[in-house]
Amino acid sequence: MTVTYDDVKTAAERIGGHVLRTPVLEISPGLFLKLEQLQHSGSFKVRGAFNRILAAGELPPSGVIAASGGNHGLAVAYAAKALGVRAEIFVPEVSSPVKVAGLRALGAEVNQVGAIYAEAAEAAGKRAAETGALQVHAYDQPEVVAGQGTTGLELMAQTGGVDTVVVAVGGGGFAAGVTVGAGTAGGSGPRIVAVEPLLCPTLHEALRAGHPVPVEVSGVGADALGASRLGGIAYDVLSRADVQSVLVSDDAIVAARRALWSEHRMVTEHAGAAAYAALLSGAYVPADGERVAVVVCGSNTDPATLA
Amino acid sequence: MTVTYDDVKTAAERIGGHVLRTPVLEISPGLFLKLEQLQHSGSFKVRGAFNRILAAGELPPSGVIAASGGNHGLAVAYAAKALGVRAEIFVPEVSSPVKVAGLRALGAEVNQVGAIYAEAAEAAGKRAAETGALQVHAYDQPEVVAGQGTTGLELMAQTGGVDTVVVAVGGGGFAAGVTVGAGTAGGSGPRIVAVEPLLCPTLHEALRAGHPVPVEVSGVGADALGASRLGGIAYDVLSRADVQSVLVSDDAIVAARRALWSEHRMVTEHAGAAAYAALLSGAYVPADGERVAVVVCGSNTDPATLA
Ligand SMILES: Cc1ncc(COP(=O)(O)O)c(C=O)c1O
Ligand SMILES: Cc1ncc(COP(=O)(O)O)c(C=O)c1O
Repeated sequence: MTVTYDDVKTAAERIGGHVLRTPVLEISPGLFLKLEQLQHSGSFKVRGAFNRILAAGELPPSGVIAASGGNHGLAVAYAAKALGVRAEIFVPEVSSPVKVAGLRALGAEVNQVGAIYAEAAEAAGKRAAETGALQVHAYDQPEVVAGQGTTGLELMAQTGGVDTVVVAVGGGGFAAGVTVGAGTAGGSGPRIVAVEPLLCPTLHEALRAGHPVPVEVSGVGADALGASRLGGIAYDVLSRADVQSVLVSDDAIVAARRALWSEHRMVTEHAGAAAYAALLSGAYVPADGERVAVVVCGSNTDPATLA
Repeated sequence: MTVTYDDVKTAAERIGGHVLRTPVLEISPGLFLKLEQLQHSGSFKVRGAFNRILAAGELPPSGVIAASGGNHGLAVAYAAKALGVRAEIFVPEVSSPVKVAGLRALGAEVNQVGAIYAEAAEAAGKRAAETGALQVHAYDQPEVVAGQGTTGLELMAQTGGVDTVVVAVGGGGFAAGVTVGAGTAGGSGPRIVAVEPLLCPTLHEALRAGHPVPVEVSGVGADALGASRLGGIAYDVLSRADVQSVLVSDDAIVAARRALWSEHRMVTEHAGAAAYAALLSGAYVPADGERVAVVVCGSNTDPATLA
């Protein structure tokens, strides 16, 4: 299964009226930040959610269903509310009351099931089979990847083109979408620098093994970047394109998140700052004159933690 | 004394390499936010500071001098540091240690003098007469107003034109600059909605009296919008152009600041949210189809206050 540039173009037309064309800021000559943390629901995840739901056409009364205590759940709840459809979100029992309340505030029905994410996901799958609700996967469905890819499409238009795009990887749907949307999967786009925390190396290990493998995940970015295995679509796209896998330490992520606030007045969660951390820490060093775009991608965080 | 469109164009060329072209985000069809809170030093004030300093050419060894415990002081210190010149900043004795530390971190020499701003300003004037340092006024010098006006110039280019620009007023240098830079002072630009807190009505009272008058100031926006009298240049520009003076309550400002965070993931100080408050509270109601740009203008705040 893969995703094409045309799929991303179609997604852009489909979701255009529902998502924000997030702005790009050139913070120094040739260094661009795409401010996707300003997106509805606080992350790019609504792009994929809207595309998946809108592509499905008429929905059953049971609406849509997803498993996620994080940004994906928020995004599906947001999109469902905007489109006037029911949303059922499965989260593990350990999910924070704040997140559950956030989902409920968006009108979603929240089911707390199981000790870990995998159990909540299994319950969501069973429930979908019973009710016929449309499942929206966090990163491994073509419409989801194509939706995330609209970020790359916009980025290229807004910057007039760059040499390199730096983007964070969890299950890999976002990076894969951006790789397609920026034209790289087709062979003509910028180099993609795919950034993961050292403690969540799903892409890194998949590339080493030659296929997605289960990975232990932990650390500051794990709540958003902690998929335990790379998605199949992501592997297909990322293993064949001009993609450089880069790992960053938790310290580098924490420092990048702080710098985004103190230098640039942007609030991000740790995952949202991981891509920028690759530059700040020197894990990726651009050549002289290289035009680089970094995707800042999530802001679901308590701003008090920046004080 | 006034400021022309050509002055703003000249300022834009002069400061272009030193300030950010802050992005514009269309948050709903025809409603644009100019994200000037992402500017260096956290507010538009660096635009005027750079323009004033660069226009002066060769500076004496004593460098530049300003009176302000707030955004203007930070901006002058930032610009002086970037240009490698000395900065002396006078602040009242009551200024918070955090602000004084912030100024010192930017390399400025800080002098705490007097109980109130006016006394610090007087001391700054005396000191400038002694040392020959270049004074940078917070809002009532042509180069300062022209520098702030580059915000309006950018806004028109970035949006492709709007019907209305909504902007906050303290001493009025910013609104005046934007009125010139957007083309309104020349008679062909958008309507300007000039927003002040009910508790800091310097423009409102000046327009009523037919000239700038002393005004009592207080409330949540007073630290940045609390000039006790409108500037002369501002009066000249704003009283003759298509400008509508609008007042907003402190409650409306607080609500707008919270909405900018919770809905749009933007961190602003109260003054930075005042213009948006005019729209959210209904103090200014756009017509159907009216294209409106709101300038979000300051982020020097503790993000913990948004938690
Ligand atoms: C803020 C943020 N950034 C990046 C990612 C990674 O996206 P993906 O799982 O598609 O790789 C996520 C996933 O939740 C996220 O929330
Ligand atoms: C954030 C912010 N907004 C608006 C203003 C008002 O600018 P002016 O005094 O030029 O009217 C100020 C002035 O300090 C400010 O700091």
